[in-house]
Amino acid sequence: MTKINFTKGHGTGNDFVLVLDADGEINLTQEQIAQICDRHFGIGADGFIRVIKSVNHPDGQAILAEEPNAVWFMDYYNADGSTAEMCGNGTRVFARYLTQRGLVELADGETLSIGTRAGVKDLQRNMSGFAVDIGRWKLDGAEALIHTDGLEVARPGIGINVGNPHYVVALASGRELADLDLHEAPGIEPAPENGANVEFVVPAEPMIKDGVGHINMRVYERGVGETLSCGTGICAAALATRHWAGAGAPNIWQVRVPGGVLGVRMFATEDGEHVGLSGAAELVYDGQLDLNQLKSVVR
Amino acid sequence: MTKINFTKGHGTGNDFVLVLDADGEINLTQEQIAQICDRHFGIGADGFIRVIKSVNHPDGQAILAEEPNAVWFMDYYNADGSTAEMCGNGTRVFARYLTQRGLVELADGETLSIGTRAGVKDLQRNMSGFAVDIGRWKLDGAEALIHTDGLEVARPGIGINVGNPHYVVALASGRELADLDLHEAPGIEPAPENGANVEFVVPAEPMIKDGVGHINMRVYERGVGETLSCGTGICAAALATRHWAGAGAPNIWQVRVPGGVLGVRMFATEDGEHVGLSGAAELVYDGQLDLNQLKSVVR
Repeated sequence: MTKINFTKGHGTGNDFVLVLDADGEINLTQEQIAQICDRHFGIGADGFIRVIKSVNHPDGQAILAEEPNAVWFMDYYNADGSTAEMCGNGTRVFARYLTQRGLVELADGETLSIGTRAGVKDLQRNMSGFAVDIGRWKLDGAEALIHTDGLEVARPGIGINVGNPHYVVALASGRELADLDLHEAPGIEPAPENGANVEFVVPAEPMIKDGVGHINMRVYERGVGETLSCGTGICAAALATRHWAGAGAPNIWQVRVPGGVLGVRMFATEDGEHVGLSGAAELVYDGQLDLNQLKSVVR
Repeated sequence: MTKINFTKGHGTGNDFVLVLDADGEINLTQEQIAQICDRHFGIGADGFIRVIKSVNHPDGQAILAEEPNAVWFMDYYNADGSTAEMCGNGTRVFARYLTQRGLVELADGETLSIGTRAGVKDLQRNMSGFAVDIGRWKLDGAEALIHTDGLEVARPGIGINVGNPHYVVALASGRELADLDLHEAPGIEPAPENGANVEFVVPAEPMIKDGVGHINMRVYERGVGETLSCGTGICAAALATRHWAGAGAPNIWQVRVPGGVLGVRMFATEDGEHVGLSGAAELVYDGQLDLNQLKSVVR
């Protein structure tokens, strides 16, 4: 089989190639996935999602033991073909795909549980698109120095884990945020073993309005580069800003990224505080790719 | 009609969305074309090509008066939705499309004539893909100062017109070429009325081997940004380098760009010297786009 059908979708500009492979019959190499995600020689995307039934994926089978309703598993890959624990916008586009294609029936208010490498994630349809419960989060307790082109001196970053590792850096002004050059990966000292995403944030003015916090952010995703939006990074940025703001800071945030605006909500559950992410999730087009044509990559 | 079928193709990484519209029934706005070419919210491409019969396009009708065999017209748009006179790699991918889809029969050695806004262009199949006769070229007689991030001082650029306007700048070393930051458009003084593409070139070592010239190049295309390859820019770069090299310089060149290697050939014709471009031209995948989904662009 050399032809595969795919769908291109995005959540606030964080874009994905989705391939339906319910029975787990399509096995692409890391190189093929990287070629597919190449924006000039392939299809082009921030990430690749194989839509597979949990029962047909090793990690999905473990998920089913925990949550039998998690029928579908998001088999997620970064643009370089490496696997990632989680992708917040990816889960929301995944939910759009499952519901729009009729693979799942989901009434308003109902919860859709899906499997990911970071465990079960619950999603709900909402006004803006889809909201996902990213789950528990934790301060890594780690501080690192972050340096990048456009910043004269290194700045402290706070380590936050939201299923995947992040460092969040507060900048002084919107001018400083705009002037960042994120064409190269920011340096992190000490370097985390498996790398980390880095978010740069600036409070909006006013930061808190009608009980909702507002920040602006740019993000560098490990294995990808600067992206227009990064779901877990947006959650990490809101969590870090609330942490810095101290007691009385809101639990509802709006985060503006280059690709649009997303909502973040922190809420108590029986197993501790969770963080949720909501915003647009769209399917843009369908296509059919001849894998043999990927050989035309000559770079 | 809100759904359009398209094909994605590229010539050495210079990539295009092609839409077959033989009868001229699809009329997209500049904004829609820009949205289609958006790499995150749309399909993503350096350019958009409507494949239309010459008889159904105003500029194509003028072409037919000149060359009745130019049945098909390349209705070309830059990624920002503006029209362009010509696109060398675009013509080669256009020829691949016409032949691979059976719209044109083309035996080896036969010539395919197509219409473009810069007049009739002739193409032939060859070992590497397709070769196009870009046509006559001329030294603009203009010199300009080019400045860009990564260059400490402005450098002189030589004006060359290959159906569209170019300035070619010679750099001192591969290091200098690699260090250019082409995320912003280079400055051109004095500024040409309709803008121009800018090519930065460095001779390979040795520059001339077995009668063939070798150069390395990067390009900034007006209305697009830095691209992996620009056909007319590659011709302009080889022409400028031959001009600088003086008498006895070869008429066959290989030009390495970030997307691959292309061949350039200068040859005499009855109406003066022409320049030809050859290299890979591939179709990668087919898709169907719902134009309504382009509304999801929120930037």
